[in-house]
Formats: sequence, structure tokens, C-alpha cells
Amino acid sequence: MKTDIQIAQEAQMDKIVDVASRLGLNEDDIDLYGKYKCKISLDKLNSDKENGKLILVTAINPTPAGEGKSTVTIGLSQALNKLDKNAIAVLREPSLGPVFGIKGGAAGGGYAQVVPMEDINLHFTGDMHAITAANNLLSAAIDNHIHQGNKLRIDSRRIVFKRVIDMNDRALRSLVVGMGGKPNGFLREDGFMITVASEVMAVLCLSSDLMDLKKRMGDILVAYNLDGQPVYCKDIEVEGAMALLMKDAIKPNLVQTLENTPAIIHGGPFANIAHGCNSLIATKLGLKLSDYVVTEAGFGADLGAEKFFNIKCRYGNLKPEAVVIVATVRALKHHGGVKKDDLGTPDVEALKKGIKNLEKHIENVKKFGVKPVVAINRFVSDAEEELSFIEEFCNEHGVEVALTEVWANGGEGGVQLAEKVLNIIDNKESDFKVLYNENISLKDKVEVIAKEIYGADGVEFTRKALNNIKSIEKFGLDKVPVCMAKTQKSLSDNDKLLGRPSGFNITVKEVKISNGAGFAVVLTGDIMTMPGLPKVPAANKMDISDDGVIEGLF
Amino acid sequence: MKTDIQIAQEAQMDKIVDVASRLGLNEDDIDLYGKYKCKISLDKLNSDKENGKLILVTAINPTPAGEGKSTVTIGLSQALNKLDKNAIAVLREPSLGPVFGIKGGAAGGGYAQVVPMEDINLHFTGDMHAITAANNLLSAAIDNHIHQGNKLRIDSRRIVFKRVIDMNDRALRSLVVGMGGKPNGFLREDGFMITVASEVMAVLCLSSDLMDLKKRMGDILVAYNLDGQPVYCKDIEVEGAMALLMKDAIKPNLVQTLENTPAIIHGGPFANIAHGCNSLIATKLGLKLSDYVVTEAGFGADLGAEKFFNIKCRYGNLKPEAVVIVATVRALKHHGGVKKDDLGTPDVEALKKGIKNLEKHIENVKKFGVKPVVAINRFVSDAEEELSFIEEFCNEHGVEVALTEVWANGGEGGVQLAEKVLNIIDNKESDFKVLYNENISLKDKVEVIAKEIYGADGVEFTRKALNNIKSIEKFGLDKVPVCMAKTQKSLSDNDKLLGRPSGFNITVKEVKISNGAGFAVVLTGDIMTMPGLPKVPAANKMDISDDGVIEGLF
Repeated sequence: MKTDIQIAQEAQMDKIVDVASRLGLNEDDIDLYGKYKCKISLDKLNSDKENGKLILVTAINPTPAGEGKSTVTIGLSQALNKLDKNAIAVLREPSLGPVFGIKGGAAGGGYAQVVPMEDINLHFTGDMHAITAANNLLSAAIDNHIHQGNKLRIDSRRIVFKRVIDMNDRALRSLVVGMGGKPNGFLREDGFMITVASEVMAVLCLSSDLMDLKKRMGDILVAYNLDGQPVYCKDIEVEGAMALLMKDAIKPNLVQTLENTPAIIHGGPFANIAHGCNSLIATKLGLKLSDYVVTEAGFGADLGAEKFFNIKCRYGNLKPEAVVIVATVRALKHHGGVKKDDLGTPDVEALKKGIKNLEKHIENVKKFGVKPVVAINRFVSDAEEELSFIEEFCNEHGVEVALTEVWANGGEGGVQLAEKVLNIIDNKESDFKVLYNENISLKDKVEVIAKEIYGADGVEFTRKALNNIKSIEKFGLDKVPVCMAKTQKSLSDNDKLLGRPSGFNITVKEVKISNGAGFAVVLTGDIMTMPGLPKVPAANKMDISDDGVIEGLF
Repeated sequence: MKTDIQIAQEAQMDKIVDVASRLGLNEDDIDLYGKYKCKISLDKLNSDKENGKLILVTAINPTPAGEGKSTVTIGLSQALNKLDKNAIAVLREPSLGPVFGIKGGAAGGGYAQVVPMEDINLHFTGDMHAITAANNLLSAAIDNHIHQGNKLRIDSRRIVFKRVIDMNDRALRSLVVGMGGKPNGFLREDGFMITVASEVMAVLCLSSDLMDLKKRMGDILVAYNLDGQPVYCKDIEVEGAMALLMKDAIKPNLVQTLENTPAIIHGGPFANIAHGCNSLIATKLGLKLSDYVVTEAGFGADLGAEKFFNIKCRYGNLKPEAVVIVATVRALKHHGGVKKDDLGTPDVEALKKGIKNLEKHIENVKKFGVKPVVAINRFVSDAEEELSFIEEFCNEHGVEVALTEVWANGGEGGVQLAEKVLNIIDNKESDFKVLYNENISLKDKVEVIAKEIYGADGVEFTRKALNNIKSIEKFGLDKVPVCMAKTQKSLSDNDKLLGRPSGFNITVKEVKISNGAGFAVVLTGDIMTMPGLPKVPAANKMDISDDGVIEGLF
């Protein structure tokens, strides 16, 4: 069987100027990055063209291997083109760190990939590096401000803005900086996060244009002063330089799928401490350039779709018209209690238990007024009786369902799904609405999500979380949507509770404000913001030969 | 008076495809990065075309303001084109860190600039970021190796390879990483350098192609094990991934000057702990694409030119045919003992004393068999009698001299210099040779440079330096050229000794091996490898407006 990179390397790519041209973009609308990548000018955001239809791809609570959400997103965009629709995929950018860790790459899989996958997985057009530089300029400026006299009286014990690096590097999680005496500044504890966890990334992904981005950069809460008052980036006076560093990064990137379907890839914030979807600018541009935009949100629907709806759609005034919920036989059996090693064995009894997880996500999506379609992402180990069971379940519950084989067959494998999605859109069966008003209290916002989406009985707040909320309210920063940081493995905040748990409470341990991005991060557990490398990193297998052939990206 | 960025923004740039086309490069030979930057394929290195003539621009020992070496380099390339010669400038890439510190930018000045200067000064084509990523992948892999069982028995007290960041950030000079207990790895002292100080940068700049780069990456000495034996990058097995990260960074970047002269900008290693000139690949490519290549080396001729000759020309088998020594009236008066505030006052007596510095550099360049031309880079404060004095001095010493006004007048201001350089080349007056055989002992190599170039009586080695040398010889890593790290302010290792000092010894405090780059770094003092930001960083004045107009880069 061919690996992803082998399939990608055999792709017959169109020149990106031709892909752009099919979207109505001429050479003044794009900046080329080699022959197969370009950035798109933001001018088209103001185009008169009617917006296309927005389709979100989300999933049930995933297993560690993932359920193939990106693959289905890409495959569905290919399938729509097979049906002669102008469709485009709009996706997140992969982070360099995980590429060298376990994953090795992230650009779809099989015959539903975006290409050139090696470039997309490596530096791409430099957006991650620009974010890293902007973030670390602010960090350097904060420490420099303190060193040079600390006019703002920043409390070096309460600097909440961290440095970042686009690398999996556990040694940098927690450190002491400023060692070596006076020339090196004041000693303090600090830590690095991976770049995608930076608020600068979240700001990029929620900004409407460069001036909005600059304003949001300035609004980032970076520290508290010795009187306990907030200190913002704008007090450090580097938001102009940060925006300057982001002048190209703000432009969405255009590439293509293996079937030459246009794909915009732009922004990729963490799906826990941030909202986990590509940039708003990219999505809006996609809607102006195409009739159908297929996009995705990180993790399962309880996290990804909820935040896509309540944060991104709220800020961007987006109206998704259909939602695809990706499920796999394997993951549903996992939710039914089957051990990892037995997932390949047919087991309809386990499916019956596990399918409750899917049931809840279907109900949840409907709460936003959007009609779902279930996409069963087929694996070779799936038994016919298992597939039939899921189909019957969906039919009984009045939900559209389609088998997809985009990994093996590309767009052809997603035609059935595409037809069902088109039906929903053509019949105008959706009427999107957000779940809460952002002006209600932070505690109420969390309760709405916990009860309505997770199925919890209620929410407990630790003393620390209550103090955080008090502080955020005191400074008047609380009238924003909440960004839940929770395990993706369960509908609850306990990753052991599979299927559709009930009779549980959510515990909120900490609340942080991302004032530039415009949301309050609600943490229900410890969130790892800097991954480590595994025993044998993917990097060790990577190589490039004299004639440019790449190995080890997959 | 217009600022550099105002002049740059008024430039009438040609499309880079047209600049490339004039060099004989078609669309398959280049990768566009927007409309005004591209990368050049290395294929042209194998072209049959006869190599062009190589011209080095160097300088006397500089004052902190610099003597305008880059400006003269760019201006001379423009002047040669005014004389209907096919000439190209080949330069170093600016580092992002200093841009936000004091300098604000580095791409020439006045009417001798490379453009688009804002892109060149910011992320350019991402080379610095690729180097940063490759460097930090190796660092993460080293700490990960120790964390995962330390099969190589790396002595965590003796890790010599540091992390890097392209930012002026003093807080990162010295730190403790791995805090927080077992999940975060083992505690150890570490430090960040600025990216240009990375050995990865030096490797890029001395490699002949991607496979050579990969081999050199593998040869980087990263640590010693608990038995005191060296541990190399290849033992950590990430040199393939590092080369993969550098697959585009290895390709030189093409831009243009304000007068549309082609300019290749590629690589920019520190001029103290590394050799301080652009990549060998860029220089060689320039020689294949043009009849005249004008290039520069960092700091004064005692450091920059010496290392250009003894390291870069040695590895690349380059034969420079003319050398321009840039001098200014102000700097020569500084060497004559005039205080900074009085440098604008005419003072021929001080010039008489200070010109001894120039005299020594003229003698030094001749020792390499290359004929020099003195370029007096004119400032408005220069008096006619001062300029005449320098000209007479040069005439009396049988050295060509030319007044240049490229800052104010662009290429037109460098025509006299260009004519004198062409004379030397046309008359084949140079016969380049390196100064020492790299197989003599490290101590002997240092003595040759100290006596012949610096004018020292001899060299003293501290106990530490002697131990370093012993260790390097023991592991058989000593048959390489030496890379002197010394103050740029004086011909000696004491920055107070101006003019042409004599009767002094050089003290070598430490010797380090850059085994991947292929040189031994000889340190005569403390070298700062991580700058800090000033009281009011240039970043604070930077901004970008809605219509893309940039302020604060200069």
C-alpha cells in the first residue's frame, strides 16, 4: 500500500496560478510562493459576489488515532467538484512541532490530501514563523521594559504572556530566565508554549483585517502591575511592530487537493485553549470565491463545533447551512467499551452502546439550528452488519447518513455524502443561531454549554476559578464568548466516561482571559501547551536525497 | 532629507521575473516569493559559463556607526552597470533581531539600497526561520535523547550546542531548562543565542550543495559524553530532518537594487564566532550568472577580509581579483584620537595619525596577493583638505583611491571607483593565495594571523585555551582554518588601541570547534551572542497602516 507521501508525490498538480484563475483571481490578487502555493490578497473580501454556502465537518469524540475529519473535509470538497459544483476546502495549517514528533504530517490522507504536502507540513508560507516572531517580540519587550526601569511597574511574578516556539520541546515547558546577573535582566520563572497555543494565533484567526488584528494585538493582556491592575500589549507599545510582522501572514494561503480542488489553508489555533478552527478571513474569502465552502473544527463536536458556532460564527456573522458529523465503526465500538486491540473484530452489541455518543452529537448540532449528516468514514476492518447498524440507527432517528471512502477513492468515495449535503442546503433546512448571548455572566455561559452540549447536571467552580472570574469581571473583560478547554475524549471532563455519560458535573479549575482574541478560556483540567518528543521521534526517519525526494513525512 | 524607507518605497522596481530573465534565468530556474523576490535553483552552479570576476568590499576598523560597506557594495554594483558591465551584488541577509533593536533595518542606505527593503528586513523568504527551526530541532532532540534513557550517555553539563531565536532578548542568554520534574526532562543550564550565531547558519554558508549541508549538519559537535568523548549531531540522527527543513533555505534569494541591478542576498553568519560573509553557494551562483560579483565581508579587513580569504575562498576555491577598502574621514580621525563629538570638525593632523590604520589594511590585503582600491565614502562634513590628504597618501603609497558618493547619488556616485576596480581586473594585477596551510597546528595558524594581519608581537594562550586545543587535537578535529573572534574596533584584541598599534600580544582565551562548519573559533575576549533591546527599541516606532504603508524601518 502506498504511503500518503508517495501518493502526494505522484499528484498531477496544476500550477497555482491556474487554480487561482479558476477562482477568478488574477496575478494582482495573489502572491506566489513557488509554483504551487500562493497567498491571496484580502481585497476579494469586499467582492460583490454572493457568499457561498458554508459546510462544517465535525466528529464524534475521537480516539487518539483521529476519525479522519480532515480527510473527509478534503474528500467532500473533491466530491462536490465531481458533481460539478464550485467547492473549496478551507482548512487549518499544520504546526511544525508535531510533524517531528509522532504525527509526521497533517494534510489529510490517502486520496484526500492537500498538496504540496511536504511544503504544507514544513514551513509552508511562513505564517507560523511570523506568529512565533510577533509573540516573542512582545515577550522580549516585556522583559526589556522591566530591565529598563519598569515604568509600568509590571509584577514579574504575574506575567501571563509566554514565549513560544514551533517545536515539541518539553525542556522548555518550565524554566528560569534572566540568569547571569544585571546585564541579563531580572530573574523570573517563565515557560514556552508551542506556537499554535499562542494568543497571537487566536488573534490572527478571529481578526477581520490587518487593522483589527493590530487592535486585538494591542488588547492582549500580558501581565498585572504591582497594584494588581492589568497591563496590555498596547502599554508596551509593540502592537504596530507585531502587525508589521504579520502583514503577509494575515493573507490566506491557496493550494489544491490531489484532484485539483482549490484549498485555502490558513491559521491553526489549539483546539483546547483556543477555538481550533482556521482563520475567519480564510473562511470569508472562501465564501466569496466559491459556491460551497467545506471547513472543519478541531476535536469532537462538543469542543470543535461548539466553539466554531459560538465563537467563530458569532464574530464572523457566519451562517453554516449543513454539518457533517464524522463517525467510524472503530470509534463507536471504543465508546461501547471495546479495548483498542479488539477494535478490528465485528461487535454490533458494542456498537449499540457506543452509538449513544453519536446520538448526543446529532442532538447538539440540531440545537444550533443546523441540520447534520452523519458520514461513516469506512475502514477495511468494518463489517457490513456494523455499517448497516449505523445506517439503520440514523434512519430511525431521521438523520441523513452516508458511507464515505474518500481515503481510498478520493472524491468518488464522497459523492453520496456530497449529495446528501447538497439536499440539505437546497432545501434550506438549516437556520443557524448561537447558543447563548455573550452578555450573560461567565458562569451562566459555562452552564449553558455544560448542560446543553455535554449533558452535565451542573458545573462546579474551584476557588481559583471563582477568583479568576471575579478578577475578569472587575476589569470588565467578561462580555465575551467562552472557550472551553476540556478533554476531547469524552463528552464530560473525565476522559474515562465514554459513550453518552450522564449524572456528572463539570469542574472548572481556572478561567483565563484572552482579551485580544476575544474569549475567556475555561479550563476543566491541566492542558498541555508544550508537547514533548516521543522515544523515537518522526524526525529520526526523515531524510531528503540529492534529487529532492523526501522520506519520513506521512 | 528622505529616510531610507521613503527612498525605498519610491523605487521603481522591475518584476523579479524580468530581473531574473536578464541573468538568463527562466521560470523553471526560479521560485517566486511574491512579485519582487525569488529563490534561484542550484542547477545553474553547474553551468558551462565562465566564472565572473570576484570583487570584495571590506573596510578599515569601523566606528560603531559603520563605514558604509554594504552601501558601497551595492553602489559599486550599480556603478558597474552604469558602465555597461553585467555586475551583481551578493550580500548577507539581515537578522530580524537587530531590526527591532537599535538598527531598524540593514539593506544599504540612501540611493544604494536593495529592495523591497521592508521584506528583506522582515521575514524575507524565511531562511532565518528555517535555520532557527533546524537548530532548535537538534536542541529538542538532544534533551529528548537524555530524557528517553540517554543511550549515548551525554553529559548534560557538557552540551555545547545551544538553542537560538531570531530576536534580541537578553532574558534568554542564560537560563535553566527542564524545570517541573520528571515529565519535563532533566534540569540543566542552557542559553539562547541569536540565530545568526548558530553553527547551522555557518554550515549553510560554507556548504556546496544540499548533500554537503546534510553531511556538515551531521558533523556538528553537540556535546561530550560521560567518558569525555565527542557526541555529534549524526549520533542524534536528525541531520536528515534538518536538511529537509533547509531544502528551500539553501537556495539563494534574488532581489534588486534601487537601480534594478540584480542582488543576491543569502546567509548572514555572525562575523565574530563565525566567518561573517554570505553563502558560498550565493557567491558561486553570482559568478555563474554575471561578469562581475561585488560582495562584502563583516567588520574591518582584519576580521572580515581575513576570514573571507582564509575560510570562504579556501573552501570554495575562489579567486578574488580586486579588493575595495572602505574608509571614511570620520573613522580615520577617530583612529587619530578625535572624540566622537568632534568628528565633524576638519583636523588633518588627526587624519595623519589615524591613516596608519588604513595603511596596515592596505598592506594586509596585498599579503593575499590581491590588489586593493581605497574607497573614501564621503560624508557632508568632510573637508576638501581632508579628502585631498587621503588621496595624496594613497598616491604616495602607490594605491588606487576613489571618492564615492553612492549614498547620495547611487551608481553615478561610484563610477570613479568602478573604473579603478575594472582597471585592476583588466590588467590582471591580482594573484590570490591563502595565508597559511590548514594542516599546520592551531597555535601556528593563530600566530600567522596575529603577526601578519594584526601586527602583534606574539600570542598568549590561557590555560583554558591550551586545554581546548589539546582536546580538539586529541579528537583529530584541528586540521581546519581558524575563525578569529576579536574586537572589530582595533587591529589588536584591545578595543582601546586605535590606529596601527604595535608592541602588543594577542591573548587567546578559548578555542571552540565548529566541526560542521569546518573551522576552529578562536576567542580573544567575551563575545556577546545574544544582544538585548535598548531603552526605546526600534520596534516601538514601527507601524503599518490600513493601506500597507510601513513606518519605523530605516
